[in-house]
Amino acid sequence: MAKTALVISAHSADFVWRCGGAIALHAAKGYEVTVLCLSYGERGESAKLWKLADMSLEKVKAARRVEAENAAKALDVHDIQFFDLGDYPLEVDRDAKYRLVDVIRKVQPEFMLSHSRWDPYNTDHMYATQIAIEARMIAQAWGHNPGEKVLGAPQLYLFEPHQTEQMEWKPDVFLDISSVWEKKWAGIQCMEGQEHLWHYYKNVAENRGNHFMRNSGGQSGGRKATHAEGFQSVFPRTVDEL
Amino acid sequence: MAKTALVISAHSADFVWRCGGAIALHAAKGYEVTVLCLSYGERGESAKLWKLADMSLEKVKAARRVEAENAAKALDVHDIQFFDLGDYPLEVDRDAKYRLVDVIRKVQPEFMLSHSRWDPYNTDHMYATQIAIEARMIAQAWGHNPGEKVLGAPQLYLFEPHQTEQMEWKPDVFLDISSVWEKKWAGIQCMEGQEHLWHYYKNVAENRGNHFMRNSGGQSGGRKATHAEGFQSVFPRTVDEL
Amino acid sequence: MAKTALVISAHSADFVWRCGGAIALHAAKGYEVTVLCLSYGERGESAKLWKLADMSLEKVKAARRVEAENAAKALDVHDIQFFDLGDYPLEVDRDAKYRLVDVIRKVQPEFMLSHSRWDPYNTDHMYATQIAIEARMIAQAWGHNPGEKVLGAPQLYLFEPHQTEQMEWKPDVFLDISSVWEKKWAGIQCMEGQEHLWHYYKNVAENRGNHFMRNSGGQSGGRKATHAEGFQSVFPRTVDEL
Amino acid sequence: MAKTALVISAHSADFVWRCGGAIALHAAKGYEVTVLCLSYGERGESAKLWKLADMSLEKVKAARRVEAENAAKALDVHDIQFFDLGDYPLEVDRDAKYRLVDVIRKVQPEFMLSHSRWDPYNTDHMYATQIAIEARMIAQAWGHNPGEKVLGAPQLYLFEPHQTEQMEWKPDVFLDISSVWEKKWAGIQCMEGQEHLWHYYKNVAENRGNHFMRNSGGQSGGRKATHAEGFQSVFPRTVDEL
Amino acid sequence: MAKTALVISAHSADFVWRCGGAIALHAAKGYEVTVLCLSYGERGESAKLWKLADMSLEKVKAARRVEAENAAKALDVHDIQFFDLGDYPLEVDRDAKYRLVDVIRKVQPEFMLSHSRWDPYNTDHMYATQIAIEARMIAQAWGHNPGEKVLGAPQLYLFEPHQTEQMEWKPDVFLDISSVWEKKWAGIQCMEGQEHLWHYYKNVAENRGNHFMRNSGGQSGGRKATHAEGFQSVFPRTVDEL
Amino acid sequence: MAKTALVISAHSADFVWRCGGAIALHAAKGYEVTVLCLSYGERGESAKLWKLADMSLEKVKAARRVEAENAAKALDVHDIQFFDLGDYPLEVDRDAKYRLVDVIRKVQPEFMLSHSRWDPYNTDHMYATQIAIEARMIAQAWGHNPGEKVLGAPQLYLFEPHQTEQMEWKPDVFLDISSVWEKKWAGIQCMEGQEHLWHYYKNVAENRGNHFMRNSGGQSGGRKATHAEGFQSVFPRTVDEL
Repeated sequence: MAKTALVISAHSADFVWRCGGAIALHAAKGYEVTVLCLSYGERGESAKLWKLADMSLEKVKAARRVEAENAAKALDVHDIQFFDLGDYPLEVDRDAKYRLVDVIRKVQPEFMLSHSRWDPYNTDHMYATQIAIEARMIAQAWGHNPGEKVLGAPQLYLFEPHQTEQMEWKPDVFLDISSVWEKKWAGIQCMEGQEHLWHYYKNVAENRGNHFMRNSGGQSGGRKATHAEGFQSVFPRTVDEL
Repeated sequence: MAKTALVISAHSADFVWRCGGAIALHAAKGYEVTVLCLSYGERGESAKLWKLADMSLEKVKAARRVEAENAAKALDVHDIQFFDLGDYPLEVDRDAKYRLVDVIRKVQPEFMLSHSRWDPYNTDHMYATQIAIEARMIAQAWGHNPGEKVLGAPQLYLFEPHQTEQMEWKPDVFLDISSVWEKKWAGIQCMEGQEHLWHYYKNVAENRGNHFMRNSGGQSGGRKATHAEGFQSVFPRTVDEL
Repeated sequence: MAKTALVISAHSADFVWRCGGAIALHAAKGYEVTVLCLSYGERGESAKLWKLADMSLEKVKAARRVEAENAAKALDVHDIQFFDLGDYPLEVDRDAKYRLVDVIRKVQPEFMLSHSRWDPYNTDHMYATQIAIEARMIAQAWGHNPGEKVLGAPQLYLFEPHQTEQMEWKPDVFLDISSVWEKKWAGIQCMEGQEHLWHYYKNVAENRGNHFMRNSGGQSGGRKATHAEGFQSVFPRTVDEL
Repeated sequence: MAKTALVISAHSADFVWRCGGAIALHAAKGYEVTVLCLSYGERGESAKLWKLADMSLEKVKAARRVEAENAAKALDVHDIQFFDLGDYPLEVDRDAKYRLVDVIRKVQPEFMLSHSRWDPYNTDHMYATQIAIEARMIAQAWGHNPGEKVLGAPQLYLFEPHQTEQMEWKPDVFLDISSVWEKKWAGIQCMEGQEHLWHYYKNVAENRGNHFMRNSGGQSGGRKATHAEGFQSVFPRTVDEL
Repeated sequence: MAKTALVISAHSADFVWRCGGAIALHAAKGYEVTVLCLSYGERGESAKLWKLADMSLEKVKAARRVEAENAAKALDVHDIQFFDLGDYPLEVDRDAKYRLVDVIRKVQPEFMLSHSRWDPYNTDHMYATQIAIEARMIAQAWGHNPGEKVLGAPQLYLFEPHQTEQMEWKPDVFLDISSVWEKKWAGIQCMEGQEHLWHYYKNVAENRGNHFMRNSGGQSGGRKATHAEGFQSVFPRTVDEL
Repeated sequence: MAKTALVISAHSADFVWRCGGAIALHAAKGYEVTVLCLSYGERGESAKLWKLADMSLEKVKAARRVEAENAAKALDVHDIQFFDLGDYPLEVDRDAKYRLVDVIRKVQPEFMLSHSRWDPYNTDHMYATQIAIEARMIAQAWGHNPGEKVLGAPQLYLFEPHQTEQMEWKPDVFLDISSVWEKKWAGIQCMEGQEHLWHYYKNVAENRGNHFMRNSGGQSGGRKATHAEGFQSVFPRTVDEL
């Protein structure tokens, strides 16, 4: 059985900027990574498209979906799903929560990925995490759809938001994505509607590479890493060796 | 070359209660674990001895040293050193800092262990950690005793204080010490002067075992662990897989 | 008129582990303690029951209710009420909020008890506290059911969650429950479906007894307490003497 | 074009106590300040009225509205709007959110003002801020009512709550309102139903004047300010000079 | 034996503004309250005196001492001591720490009072608290001056700083000082060199009275208190009833 | 009289990476900016030099000084001073504090700049800030060198540390340095011994430019800024307009 991971992305581009490297890296290690886009970001994260003539919500959603699917391909995503719940604001009702629980139980992820706990610029982001935490709990309940395999206790990693300090986000793990940087860069370039962010996230990846090195061996060297991604763990780890 | 670890303990008993399991477990894995006791805790943590007749500072220190050495033996400590810097308050001058740096550089630890960042009950504890962080930095400096091998960037784990919540201490890693619990229990019983704490730390170890299980697989089971220890990391981890 | 207290428990077992001692102790002092269970914890906290053959939601709820009633009896609870609002996730609509306000106003508690503000393992817990705070506010409103006696400003104590540090919970008061420990232990043993937690909460009570002593007189003695419970206050106290 | 500002007030009196000086001052500078009262505070903040004979919800709302309109006049408010969404608890559904977005877009404020992020005494307050942040985000979305002018990125200032420390509120800016204090004092006196708060907020304004001076030039002098108001910024500033 | 309390004041006026009410109130209840002024505040808190002609450090200290002694008298202080350790910056060497420990042990206080943990305006303040915590610990050590009566575990209350929010200070207890307000007001007026602060602290006392009422019974009344003082506890309480 | 600013830099390169843009920008506006290097960073931040043959502490200091002077020239620094107090660890005794106070009083800065409050990688950094805060306080004391002009209450900005999130640093102001970026880049390139950081801080400046735009007008545009620097304010601002 392949190992699995699950990304819960508020809008259809978030998974690319924030954990595209983790996706591609784990895919390369044999993980099947599922990406769940709660919305397309059609209203709030598609300014460039809305400036075009003759645009409609459906057209924007279609364009965003194509971009996300292309990026998913570039990143070797195993499965990408679109819940199309609307954005700005994202709203997740009980039925949608249960659909999310269904996905979590089916995937049985080794770990989950979602947004920061606080984001005053974008309440959809923090709401997605709140829902992810709630759905994780429901998926663990023996009395929810009795007979189904319940969820264990996968780690929930919060991926890097824009303006990390404003989001009260603090990474406690840096993942070396040097070996898959080209894939992440290809995925980023699929997001044609947000070209102004490409260079920004390239810089982020390079500087997180610096942080990786700073923590992996100190000033005197440290293993070389050209690119990295940072994550904040919600739950403590359990280990057999420090 | 054996892997190594370094414990910086404000008083001579702290390493037993707080990371005795980690010591014994890593020793069993082939690590050489060095324990550095900055003081004997002779003034502030030896009430039982001071209630005996005809006591003196030297007698208390001697008794504390024997207890600590016995515990070290029980825990398979590779080397235990006593800096005898005094307690209540502990004071570390420049020379003592440099002696500490010498030890750090000689040990070249994979990871270090010390106290919580805040402790209003016991300022020696938080001071020890402040010194540990400072000495770690000095040990990384190429210009300190040029020619010596500088330190890399080992993790600094903060071990469990008494009354964790008051110390603003939050564990992010639980270590399964089930396999070495008997050794830790033997080490604890070497601390004859603080028998009132034996049962307390037995309870702590059992309940941390519960926390280990809660995080390693969820309500539906999780790997069995009878005893565990918790640690708070000061620095982020660098990994190749989440 | 008897003094009163009110416990707001997300699931029907929470009040036992987390404040069973406070309940029994205040009952012994003449308080009438009301316990309000928002749900039975039938879906998420009844794994052992769901593993039995031929189980249904109604059967689980019935079993949980019996356990809770038995525990309430063991703890000398004055009144236990079940709102049966569902769990995993718990949902409290406007009508249910108003029913809760009715109970608060009828009880007119000296103090209230509920869960920690944050709990990433169990969103029902933190949601219950959010609702408790909101209902406390509504109960204070002169314009809510005008003519009824409005609520004063009772303290809201947050009782001890599982894995306190992960819940960002910090106790500021320790209650000596030594005199009623046998009652709490009897109450705990009523929770037959969660036998794996009995020993855990026995350890907690003993170690909180240690914390009680550490704060009530210092290393040189302190009043003896074999068992205690910790609580975090939401509101400041008003006193006539420090 | 006049500059504009927007106050989002949970209840119809909040804007007076908490930012009446900022309103009057900016009006004097030529700003058009719009005040949006989400509710009248008719149930929870009108105890004095409810103690009168023969009172009803409609009568209380009418009285509260008159008070608020009088205060608005005293403070030179440009426009005051009442959403009448109910209080204790305040509830804002999707339609009401969109009405709020309409106002924000129409006003296109240079800055917005609302409540503290945390308020365990009054959940309406923190809920209003949550809604303000969400509505600000929606107002920035190009896909929300395409064709309308989208919102830029105005600062959101959190005005001073009652019992600041309990609300985890920390002012990072003090505004000198000495020149308009008489207007604020007149506005305060319009709130006939809450006369017990007049003196309290006079003291606050005087002491914030002291804080202004302490920070504007130090012990050796500092510019004289008799009255001030404090605010906490949600977003970072962008400047051309420190 | 009279109950006792100990105030540790960085400068010779701090005890008046910040806990003069607590002093007078407990004196009225029969406590013997000792005030320890670590310095006179002669360099940093005596601007008015330094503006006079022909001033010297000794003259300023003498004038400050007279003011403090007068205030102590007005507040019924049992004993006031001046350590004259210098200010801006205050420095406490090992000998001075031991003198402080001597006082603590001699007084054997039921509770201690000192400054906030953080104060970027005045490092003497936070340093005094750091020293108070350290000295409390030393006073508990059986090995410090063996044979002396060791200290128990008195609460350490942090009294109200100027600009509370900037100091990250949060009161968890309000003390009703209405009955001794006249004494505190008389004490305040002894501080002739800092007349600009008299009105400020009168406002503080009145508004803390409001907070007292808000927490002692709610909007519908609450016990009347015209003046109060707020304190933050460092340690948890131990109680027999919530 | 020219306006002035003062940078307090733990090591001789810090001012370049962390606030070189602010220096050059304010110089261009007519400010006289003084830079105070407490040490050369000769032991801990000169790894590249120490790897050369035949090196000594004096040679490293000389080389570091030249680099810093060159960078100062590139940034239009008005005056650069070297206190040569040693690094790893930096130690500032009473005399050195008073020298620092002398500089502060002579410069009478509009604002000061120093390091983050917390830095577990580099205790010199946080110690420098602690000293800056203490010296600022001493400089305000009328009794320190009576007759000298005392300091007002300048803002203290904390400039950007390496790994901002680990340092618990949160910028509340972004400064547009686009117009002086070439100067900053030239200054950076003077730091020949730390070439591995050039690209890192170029990325930082670009991404802070992005943050500037995100906060200065929103997704729909915002003023263009190619480069920016972030700062955290220690003290609240005092303003006449929000």
